[in-house]
Amino acid sequence: MSLLCVRVKKAKLQGPPDKFNAYVTLKVQNVKSTTITVRGDQPCWEQDFMFEINRLDLGLIVEVWNKGLIWDTMVGTSWIPLKSVRHSEEEGSGEWIFMDAEVLMKADEIYGTKNPTPHRVLLDTRFELPFDIPDDEAQYWTGKLDHINTLRIHDEYPLQDDVQSRPLPFAASQC
Amino acid sequence: MSLLCVRVKKAKLQGPPDKFNAYVTLKVQNVKSTTITVRGDQPCWEQDFMFEINRLDLGLIVEVWNKGLIWDTMVGTSWIPLKSVRHSEEEGSGEWIFMDAEVLMKADEIYGTKNPTPHRVLLDTRFELPFDIPDDEAQYWTGKLDHINTLRIHDEYPLQDDVQSRPLPFAASQC
Repeated sequence: MSLLCVRVKKAKLQGPPDKFNAYVTLKVQNVKSTTITVRGDQPCWEQDFMFEINRLDLGLIVEVWNKGLIWDTMVGTSWIPLKSVRHSEEEGSGEWIFMDAEVLMKADEIYGTKNPTPHRVLLDTRFELPFDIPDDEAQYWTGKLDHINTLRIHDEYPLQDDVQSRPLPFAASQC
Repeated sequence: MSLLCVRVKKAKLQGPPDKFNAYVTLKVQNVKSTTITVRGDQPCWEQDFMFEINRLDLGLIVEVWNKGLIWDTMVGTSWIPLKSVRHSEEEGSGEWIFMDAEVLMKADEIYGTKNPTPHRVLLDTRFELPFDIPDDEAQYWTGKLDHINTLRIHDEYPLQDDVQSRPLPFAASQC
């Protein structure tokens, strides 16, 4: 088990600013996280997300969507192989990821994307815990994260809990 | 161009009721619509969605997600071939669709799902406009829908607009 930390920083989208009201989804295995929706061609989210990763042969699917009243339209997508993600305890300045229009699939799994678009997203992606942490520590983290994840937004945060000493896995926008 | 109407009615999910806080996404081509999030193992949405369809060889991807504080977890997915969807001007009672755990992909497109789950969703799916409407009428509808879709939620609805005589493409919950 390893802990994948992703900070969705901002985007540069090509087109009239009033055309966009965009959000980003991050998907890996069967879990998904979503940013808030921000207007304009240079939306800024500065939101942190984390995922438990058990398989390094997969990738992180990044999707940018434009929110509409009836339906949302995909702006672009990108696939980041987990093997390419750095290990670091510290946040970085991020990398500009160009979005493609379509995914490539083989044997029922996504392995890349194709058809470039002019849209790009600034992402800071890193593994915070090494992939080979001991089983008991991995179990501790899995249990802890699953517990936090099932809390309701307005639930009281368990103060006696020692995960308290770590930053919460999401951040208010700093834009 | 044809108009696909989908009413997401309710679901029966297997597991403890307090485990679920679920929403449904509908995806076709590069557009997506999402229901509100409802708690419990028998969530009721009763929400209507519509999509412009240009290719009948594709399918509607239905996904049920369980909302978490950090990430959402996929409950199940199903793929409905558009060729199997009935043509009707009237709402129906819907069909129970069983959810699978994974999608099947070939040549960069989804063509089905596999690995059954016990979870199921009641969907009413129909084409409201015939597939072979005249070009000018198709253009009229495409323009009209795109215009509505880019309205902001609190924008004033254009009263002089003759689309006004049709029901709005989304409904308040009737559960």
